[in-house]
Amino acid sequence: MTPTKHRATIVAEPGRSDLIVTREFDAPRELVFKAYTDPALIVKWLGPRNYAMQLDAFEPRSGGHYRYLHVDNETGAVYAFHGVIHEVVPNERIIQTFEFEGMPEGGHVSLESAVFEALPGGRTRVVNRTAFLSVDDRDGMVASGMESGMQDSYDRLDEVLSGK
Amino acid sequence: MTPTKHRATIVAEPGRSDLIVTREFDAPRELVFKAYTDPALIVKWLGPRNYAMQLDAFEPRSGGHYRYLHVDNETGAVYAFHGVIHEVVPNERIIQTFEFEGMPEGGHVSLESAVFEALPGGRTRVVNRTAFLSVDDRDGMVASGMESGMQDSYDRLDEVLSGK
Repeated sequence: MTPTKHRATIVAEPGRSDLIVTREFDAPRELVFKAYTDPALIVKWLGPRNYAMQLDAFEPRSGGHYRYLHVDNETGAVYAFHGVIHEVVPNERIIQTFEFEGMPEGGHVSLESAVFEALPGGRTRVVNRTAFLSVDDRDGMVASGMESGMQDSYDRLDEVLSGK
Repeated sequence: MTPTKHRATIVAEPGRSDLIVTREFDAPRELVFKAYTDPALIVKWLGPRNYAMQLDAFEPRSGGHYRYLHVDNETGAVYAFHGVIHEVVPNERIIQTFEFEGMPEGGHVSLESAVFEALPGGRTRVVNRTAFLSVDDRDGMVASGMESGMQDSYDRLDEVLSGK
């Protein structure tokens, strides 16, 4: 699959425990990286459009941790997520763990890597790799409706990057 | 494959990015867990027998981090590793990231989960799942000779657990 300009490409091969999502943006990578690491910006785009994002902790640096809530604007339902940050290399990559706190049991943790690639014309490609501890964990994430939430997030990020 | 009593079982399916290692021990899980989290004990068993382990940082708790060195007793060569700890649930599980600092480039990080299962007769099964960000990373780890180092580690852990 070739990534289209403004649509995320998701590769989730059957029987495997990883996931690759690629997305391109019409903005330089310093700005895209800033949108991932500035607390005032990330709350404007991460998550589905009908959710409000609240940062409980946000330390985008090697050894830091984060925790955030997504609040459904219609129902008031709250979804919480947290993780630790293995590495942040400014403008290059972020590697962190991720856990949804609403699972019936603990231990369903994944590892996320976001690599920021500068493209000609001041554009940027972000390659997101997620490694799950089992195929079931990976398939559960895909089945949870992550794709629509993700496409929503990236569309909102386009808007943040264009200053809308 | 059925785990044999004192031999680790490694499952690394072709074309996948994960690895499962299972090992049983003749000791209760509280003791096995202690051997994973007590700095005075872990240096006695983690790594090949001909290496000395030095802890640079060791915080076995949720949100902590670690860094250690393996020093080859014969050549003096030093190998460094570090990661952040997503979660420690006493006597139940440890989930952390792992990176070998000797890679030519950064970003080759994996996620490790160790689950401690109590078995009848005061014995313990440890199930280790490792999730890599790519099949190449997984295959590189397997090709690095991890298996002999790992079997060495577990044999040494048997000795620690038996008070030798």
